[in-house]
Amino acid sequence: MKGVLSGIRVIDLTRVLAGPFCTMQLGELGAEIVKIETPKGGDDARHIGPFIDGRSGYFMSINRGKKSVALDLKAAADRAHFERLLETADVLVENYRGGTMEKLGYGWDVLHARYPRLIYCAISGFGHTGPYASRPAYDMIVQAMGGVMSVTGYAGEAPARVGVSIGDLAAGLYGASAIQGALFHRERTGETQKLDISMLDCQVTLLENAIAQTHVRGQPPGPIGARHPAIAPFGMFRARDGYLAIAAGNDGLFATLAKTLGLDALLADARFATNPARMEHVDALTEAMNAALAAADRVHWFAKLEAAGIPCGPINDVADVMADPQIAARNMIVHIDDEAGPFPTPGNPIKSSIFPDAPTRPAAPALDEHRREILGD
Amino acid sequence: MKGVLSGIRVIDLTRVLAGPFCTMQLGELGAEIVKIETPKGGDDARHIGPFIDGRSGYFMSINRGKKSVALDLKAAADRAHFERLLETADVLVENYRGGTMEKLGYGWDVLHARYPRLIYCAISGFGHTGPYASRPAYDMIVQAMGGVMSVTGYAGEAPARVGVSIGDLAAGLYGASAIQGALFHRERTGETQKLDISMLDCQVTLLENAIAQTHVRGQPPGPIGARHPAIAPFGMFRARDGYLAIAAGNDGLFATLAKTLGLDALLADARFATNPARMEHVDALTEAMNAALAAADRVHWFAKLEAAGIPCGPINDVADVMADPQIAARNMIVHIDDEAGPFPTPGNPIKSSIFPDAPTRPAAPALDEHRREILGD
Repeated sequence: MKGVLSGIRVIDLTRVLAGPFCTMQLGELGAEIVKIETPKGGDDARHIGPFIDGRSGYFMSINRGKKSVALDLKAAADRAHFERLLETADVLVENYRGGTMEKLGYGWDVLHARYPRLIYCAISGFGHTGPYASRPAYDMIVQAMGGVMSVTGYAGEAPARVGVSIGDLAAGLYGASAIQGALFHRERTGETQKLDISMLDCQVTLLENAIAQTHVRGQPPGPIGARHPAIAPFGMFRARDGYLAIAAGNDGLFATLAKTLGLDALLADARFATNPARMEHVDALTEAMNAALAAADRVHWFAKLEAAGIPCGPINDVADVMADPQIAARNMIVHIDDEAGPFPTPGNPIKSSIFPDAPTRPAAPALDEHRREILGD
Repeated sequence: MKGVLSGIRVIDLTRVLAGPFCTMQLGELGAEIVKIETPKGGDDARHIGPFIDGRSGYFMSINRGKKSVALDLKAAADRAHFERLLETADVLVENYRGGTMEKLGYGWDVLHARYPRLIYCAISGFGHTGPYASRPAYDMIVQAMGGVMSVTGYAGEAPARVGVSIGDLAAGLYGASAIQGALFHRERTGETQKLDISMLDCQVTLLENAIAQTHVRGQPPGPIGARHPAIAPFGMFRARDGYLAIAAGNDGLFATLAKTLGLDALLADARFATNPARMEHVDALTEAMNAALAAADRVHWFAKLEAAGIPCGPINDVADVMADPQIAARNMIVHIDDEAGPFPTPGNPIKSSIFPDAPTRPAAPALDEHRREILGD
């Protein structure tokens, strides 16, 4: 892979998802990712399904193209290997709980003094400061504690977890972003830094409008089903043969939508004259739209709505996504060269005018596969 | 704000959320954000609630610290202003639908020839290539089309939208990451690039394990409520007085958890011996855990689980999040200096060892507030 990070070496102590997703992104941008795994079974993700021929598809996807070296950071000989590696590194990433690196003797003070060119990114459940700093976490915990679950799902039902691991993924995204900013800063000034990324902090940044609503209304929002908290119409509606998504984010789009659905009468109705008015009367608006949409199947409405320039689309399952022509045209399902055959995985969404976007990816490493290449003899 | 992007000027044509969230992150890292708004009412987000004294809290949060200039990019005099601004810019960001910049005469070929130092980031619903390139989208549409809704919510219920705008936010995160990578590349090589970010593409990257599962099992996963798709126990459980989240991601944690709940018998049960086995018998496992947890309130279990090192936590609503001592210690609710009083909004989750993390933020601009400062006389 060639990209903006070509020539950058990342030493990667991360396990499971938040950290590995961060370093996967750096790899997609051209960085060399040297994954350091515990000799006892390696990354926990190697033991999480689904499995193909006994190997984890979960691990394969997130660790494609990385190099693996098994090192025990509590053993002297392996520590010496690790320290020689750090001399060659631009970036060190880990996602232990807070305090672990200090116990290993690799806190930032030590690292910075010995490796002044090294950028260090720590991703942890709660960050390295504050009363929860040393607590462990996984995705589920920060989704629950960060408020995202409280607004996901339907009122009167149990809270729902976001069906993907947004607790891990958001932290991985911020980590990759922060590391690139730190590389830019080092290039401009020579200065390096420690980046302390908390999964819980990252969840808070996703709350955006929910914090404003809690402040203004004096009480937190509840789950909102398949609607937007502040825009209407903006949600899931029902045609004769099933659900579809429609979003009209301003008055002009709403006027066009009403005409397209044969609901011109709504435009003379003060309840629907502005977005705040539509939010106040969102149930009546939804009812009127569903009554109109029930007259025909989705394919009919997609054709009409698209012709009118109204944002709309189907509620796709993951198989639909993998078969979608736009996803194919964008090379967003790439295939890993795996011994069990081509294995599909999400592509790189950063499409650059100067770097090619390969349709395949190299395989994820076997545990300790690159020992000789990385450590020498 | 001082940060890795100090001295970088971003010309920001974005509206609503995906683009403004991207440039907000760049502003948090020290970049100057010059927001170009249509003279007719400005950014649509100015008209989305909740409102404080008639001003949008939604807009205030996402546009804090930016500068606003109102320009009509179809009027000659304003185009001249815009083009002079581009001469001073490092980065141009927009989130129009595909084709709009070309119609305005500002496609990448034109921009790159005239402003060779300029990095250009386009964020759109579907990207600038492929059959859907010119279609409009909002968050709801890409959440629906991208598969995330299909795995969110409870089996047998209607699909749920993620309660926050993850369709916009993921694209904004990738955009900010990509721009920093491009700045690093420009600093190293002098070369600039166009970045083409699709909201739908970004949703696909969040699917991670769901794509592997669809491939391996031959059918897509459905909604999974409040559980992890591949790890058990990892989800929401029920104590005597309500829900709590518990996640044991490996065999060692599971053994500790079973002992902490007084469920030592599970450890001799082949159904729960490995993570794949626990996934297969997840309903029985959940039932056993809930039966044990029902004996006491959450506060009892949090104390025991935390002492044992088991990742756990409450299902917080947004008010709980805003009152959490860890969130406070991490400065993750910052206050905007607004004329209506301090206004709370998420802080910057990128905690750096070399840049301060201010507890307040400057206000969002009034429409065209910075005309004189930015354009001169």
